[in-house]
Amino acid sequence: MDICRLSAEAALARMESGDLSARELVQACLDRIAEREDTVRAWTFLDPDLALAQADAADQRRRDGQAGPLNGIPVGIKDIIDTADQPTENGSQLCAGRRPDTDATLVALLRQAGAVIMGKCVTTEFALSAPGKTRNPHDPARTPGGSSSGSAAAVADFMVPLAIGSQTGGSMLRPASFNGVYGLKPTFGTISRAGMSPLSRRLDHPGIFARTPEDMALAGRVLMQRDPADKDMRAHPKMGEADPLTAPPRLAFVRGPAWGRGEADMQQAIEGLARDLGDDVREADLPPVFDAALECHGMVMNGAVGQSLGPYYDRDRAGLDPITADRVERGRPVTAREYLDALYQAEEMQDALAGFFDGVDAILTPAAPGQAPRELTRTGDASFNGYWTLMGAPAASVPLLKGADGMPIGVQVICPWGQDAKLLRICRWLADKVGEWR
Amino acid sequence: MDICRLSAEAALARMESGDLSARELVQACLDRIAEREDTVRAWTFLDPDLALAQADAADQRRRDGQAGPLNGIPVGIKDIIDTADQPTENGSQLCAGRRPDTDATLVALLRQAGAVIMGKCVTTEFALSAPGKTRNPHDPARTPGGSSSGSAAAVADFMVPLAIGSQTGGSMLRPASFNGVYGLKPTFGTISRAGMSPLSRRLDHPGIFARTPEDMALAGRVLMQRDPADKDMRAHPKMGEADPLTAPPRLAFVRGPAWGRGEADMQQAIEGLARDLGDDVREADLPPVFDAALECHGMVMNGAVGQSLGPYYDRDRAGLDPITADRVERGRPVTAREYLDALYQAEEMQDALAGFFDGVDAILTPAAPGQAPRELTRTGDASFNGYWTLMGAPAASVPLLKGADGMPIGVQVICPWGQDAKLLRICRWLADKVGEWR
Repeated sequence: MDICRLSAEAALARMESGDLSARELVQACLDRIAEREDTVRAWTFLDPDLALAQADAADQRRRDGQAGPLNGIPVGIKDIIDTADQPTENGSQLCAGRRPDTDATLVALLRQAGAVIMGKCVTTEFALSAPGKTRNPHDPARTPGGSSSGSAAAVADFMVPLAIGSQTGGSMLRPASFNGVYGLKPTFGTISRAGMSPLSRRLDHPGIFARTPEDMALAGRVLMQRDPADKDMRAHPKMGEADPLTAPPRLAFVRGPAWGRGEADMQQAIEGLARDLGDDVREADLPPVFDAALECHGMVMNGAVGQSLGPYYDRDRAGLDPITADRVERGRPVTAREYLDALYQAEEMQDALAGFFDGVDAILTPAAPGQAPRELTRTGDASFNGYWTLMGAPAASVPLLKGADGMPIGVQVICPWGQDAKLLRICRWLADKVGEWR
Repeated sequence: MDICRLSAEAALARMESGDLSARELVQACLDRIAEREDTVRAWTFLDPDLALAQADAADQRRRDGQAGPLNGIPVGIKDIIDTADQPTENGSQLCAGRRPDTDATLVALLRQAGAVIMGKCVTTEFALSAPGKTRNPHDPARTPGGSSSGSAAAVADFMVPLAIGSQTGGSMLRPASFNGVYGLKPTFGTISRAGMSPLSRRLDHPGIFARTPEDMALAGRVLMQRDPADKDMRAHPKMGEADPLTAPPRLAFVRGPAWGRGEADMQQAIEGLARDLGDDVREADLPPVFDAALECHGMVMNGAVGQSLGPYYDRDRAGLDPITADRVERGRPVTAREYLDALYQAEEMQDALAGFFDGVDAILTPAAPGQAPRELTRTGDASFNGYWTLMGAPAASVPLLKGADGMPIGVQVICPWGQDAKLLRICRWLADKVGEWR
């Protein structure tokens, strides 16, 4: 196997045994990038010398017996997340040349664990919907999805085994689905957003892309640390060690309020999956309070965007992509009353969801309306993700299905709050049971 | 001493020793109410038979060895807090005759502790500013303050030793000051609001009126219990047992951003107090971020009121007092952006306040602009309280000062988050050191 195709776990095992150096691993990833970047365009900043210097330091640490849990593993970072040694431009010309003084907390945690901060991955403008330059590695005429476009594409194209993205609507799991990789949006409040450009404190979730569930767990164990600088952190965030599944998980197949926006090939593929899983899955409807879920997420997100991006808009509207400016304009008229009504309605949904999970280990539902659309001027529809983001429960996309053109389609798996480790076990169980998309 | 003048603690001691029955205590309070209610008008609902039946049950429990920590103690309940056996009308004709099915959590906790739910105390309409019928017991031409008007007046006038109120702006500590009693607005999220008419989930605090700091601690130990039905509860609310003060507390006298709204007699009285305390107090200015504190509280409160009372307004504007309707109208145009900006600015103040408390045990600052105003159509100015409510730190009013007409003026004492027990120790220390107002 090409070195660049190794999972983080496999690469760590080989580095531990002395069979591979971090320099070799990073060089293999750099070679892959050099070969493919003209097509995929996943990176907005990449300094090979800086990456190799970090790799050499990692090799030295390993010789010194100081190797952390991600020692020498290259990780791509979405460009809304601050790095002290690399620019962070938020996908916006308004932030061109911006150089933060300090690392975001999650970047600092990765460095402490020994990771190589490989470079900055393309994001849509401020993690909304105005696309960057990235193309889908499986078909460059198609969008990679967004907003974590470069992070998903880089992992899918074997440029890095791990990348960090974020999700406020569908910015992790939609690109995971479109690119045929795993994506984890962990439980709300488990990974610090300090040093990450905010859209909505209520909705923003950092997340992890990888090519195996186990690599997501590995990164999650490093990243889920309480940080007082993020006021919305849970008290005891943790990626636990889930008990092994001693029996098949009890799954509920949920079409959900966005089902009508799905494409026929996706609908048939996931219904077929549910059928194939037989007794391990039952069909279920969400409680009626979810009928308002799409509108509710939209209201919270728009109201928050009016606040978070309002200052950029006020300063230089023309400097924003019209897609971004339009989103701010939709957010500005949202009243506190509308915003609070939506927040409280979301709590009712969260309560109802807690009851729904009685006797259910995980929900299966679409991760995206279908294959990646064949266009580069938009990033696709987040309707299948936004309301789950609003729920705060951990959600993953598992690359199980194939669409009409042979492109990947993800299955979204959702577990109760805090059960991130169990979620990843179930992702593994599904991948073993039905096989990945290829 | 008249039985109705006993503190809860003293009454409990006498009941424990068999020297007093709950029926005698409740009857003494009912006699006091019968004597004074025409003047004070503290109660919106009072059923002597219901109170006496509860007293008899309490006496039976004591004989059975089942007496809880408040067994037989009569407690007044602000009429925005639900009681299953008594009406709860929220001070509004829109809720006339309303009979809740269940007790608010805090009422249920009081009952579990053996308290006698004496009756419902007058509130302003929906705990905003439109006055009810209550008059100041020290001068019936003056307001008792609001919104917890009846609760404060009933305790001040020896009708009950304890009463429950609430504060969103200055609805606990202003009436405590005007009526010459103790009031405690505990740390945010320590007493459940489930079953209490909401104004702002960010700001609403149930609170305790009493005639001694020890009685507030007694009630606080009963009431500070986690309740999943209030989503904003702290994880481990508790009225601890504070260590005894082994040295004088280190106090900071703070004039604060509302100082200019104070009256001359209040300003002189509290400056005199600070001087008299000598080395135990130093003057200090709040950090500059507090310059916006009054506006910030107003924005959060107005935005929330537009949401919480909006449905009443939409249904029957004419049924609201014009003062209430005006407040809703001020809240309706508040945007999500303005609301969120204010919330995040308040967090900066909270951070700055945490630093301010380095080397300071408690802040002394005015509890009100001066004596209770000589009017019954308004309830006075909450400017000295609202921004402390926004901070969420525990705050008490201590009846130490006297105004130009001999009316009481409270001193507001504030401790860091969670230090409610220490706050009450410091209230006791102050009362012993300088004496109460009378």
